[in-house]
Amino acid sequence: MSLIVTGTIGIDTVYTPAGEHREGVLGGSCAYFAAAASFYGPVRLVAAVGDDFPDEHQATLARFGRIDTAGLEIRAGSKTFRWGGKYLDNMDHRESLFTELNVLEEAPPAVPESFKDSEYVFLANMHPALQAELLSQVPSPKLAVADTMDLWIDVARDDLAKLLTKVDGLVLNYDEAEQYTGKKNPVTAGRALLDEGPTFVVVKKGEHGAILVHRDGVAALPAYPAEEVVDPTGAGDTFAGGMMGHLAATNPENPTDFDTLRRAMAHGTIIASFTIETFSLDRLAGLTGEQIGERYDEFASMVALR
Amino acid sequence: MSLIVTGTIGIDTVYTPAGEHREGVLGGSCAYFAAAASFYGPVRLVAAVGDDFPDEHQATLARFGRIDTAGLEIRAGSKTFRWGGKYLDNMDHRESLFTELNVLEEAPPAVPESFKDSEYVFLANMHPALQAELLSQVPSPKLAVADTMDLWIDVARDDLAKLLTKVDGLVLNYDEAEQYTGKKNPVTAGRALLDEGPTFVVVKKGEHGAILVHRDGVAALPAYPAEEVVDPTGAGDTFAGGMMGHLAATNPENPTDFDTLRRAMAHGTIIASFTIETFSLDRLAGLTGEQIGERYDEFASMVALR
Repeated sequence: MSLIVTGTIGIDTVYTPAGEHREGVLGGSCAYFAAAASFYGPVRLVAAVGDDFPDEHQATLARFGRIDTAGLEIRAGSKTFRWGGKYLDNMDHRESLFTELNVLEEAPPAVPESFKDSEYVFLANMHPALQAELLSQVPSPKLAVADTMDLWIDVARDDLAKLLTKVDGLVLNYDEAEQYTGKKNPVTAGRALLDEGPTFVVVKKGEHGAILVHRDGVAALPAYPAEEVVDPTGAGDTFAGGMMGHLAATNPENPTDFDTLRRAMAHGTIIASFTIETFSLDRLAGLTGEQIGERYDEFASMVALR
Repeated sequence: MSLIVTGTIGIDTVYTPAGEHREGVLGGSCAYFAAAASFYGPVRLVAAVGDDFPDEHQATLARFGRIDTAGLEIRAGSKTFRWGGKYLDNMDHRESLFTELNVLEEAPPAVPESFKDSEYVFLANMHPALQAELLSQVPSPKLAVADTMDLWIDVARDDLAKLLTKVDGLVLNYDEAEQYTGKKNPVTAGRALLDEGPTFVVVKKGEHGAILVHRDGVAALPAYPAEEVVDPTGAGDTFAGGMMGHLAATNPENPTDFDTLRRAMAHGTIIASFTIETFSLDRLAGLTGEQIGERYDEFASMVALR
């Protein structure tokens, strides 16, 4: 079924604790999400970049084959969003070195007419008022899920609260769930978020996995126990991409069903585990469906208790 | 089959971030382990306390029904080990308020003659030289597993290294695995520990679950997503107790088999999730096998991906 993602496309510079770095690589929540979701089916991308957006990055997006870039606005005279970050010793935390919002400070991209029948909507991380505005352009979503970040909880809490009344689900990091709710337990924080509107919340814990807090129950999954972590950038976005991509591809009668979401979360877990093996989208660009299937099976065996 | 545990029995004082505290409660690695293991079958306890050890604590151990205290030495003129600790805000870290080693500074308890045929041996946390000494008193263990802590890695690293050549498995916290190996990834740290001798290492991550690093593979399990965490003391010891108790009770042909250990780890996960719901052994003292079974089934469903 039709899956749409709106969010950022950026040009990233990333430093790792091992002393490696990459300058000017393809990044942004929307790029990571779309690449991951494309392994499951077509994905419609809505984002804006400047005319400095490198051809090679467009080529990378094209290489995934099923990313529909009809909603990618390349704005003359504008500059692409740029972000630089450095991961700290344990890969769990990072510091931003610079953030140049550029085109993100302009009017948001519009949802193309041909995308308005989308049924699965993912609002990747950006200002919650923009997320709400973009969501309003898709009249009858079957499933709408949003991501967010600490910045918006700080500066746009009211907009985020409004958005929570309009989406079925929220995915966010544990730190962010704690920040929003003041609750120091992922399940308790998730439940407090449910009180704000959504049917489910996925609390992401990075290398420690994720917890699904749902009106019908709670489930925890570990992360895939990866040994080589080069660059965690985009892990959360590709987690969401795998989860939503799987849901859109299987198009269950009730995509907010607890067990359906729990299983979808495992697909996100697997895609994210590949993402972090190299910089940017490099690993996903070389990934095959067979490799995803093999690791999914390995993961399923790892946690099988019956 | 015959399961033996050696370690400490203590009198604890515990402060929680919520402002609650308990003074003089039953604690110690051996007490927690034995209580947890007793749900699966009989467990033989070897430890020393002083003549200040309260009758009520002895009564608590007796209440579990299957803890054989023939190896519990109550030494006239000696004082029981006492520990006081305070949990910090997120329950993940604690600070020791006081540690009175007392009887732990004397000669270790002896393994009673009637316990020497034990087949499953758990060396709960204490000085690794004492762990080795106690292990040497059980001539033909089918499975020998040790726990350890940061203190021994600091002050008795050589003894710990020697112990690792004598046991089949090691369970330890992730911080400790990192401290011993210098590796900042639980799988990599676990593999480095395998190089020291054991067939498997269980890297415990508290609320984030545990990772089994084994010569034949790697598996991760989440913790049970508990909402009410009152006192995490003993979570790791009861995790080990559930794991070893299950192994001893089922007595598999090869107890170091990867898949066997992986499933045993899930039993540890479930028992530990009960332990932290109240102070000391209070929750385990009121626990039934039926409640363990129900939560195990719930947990198995939570991670079932097939």
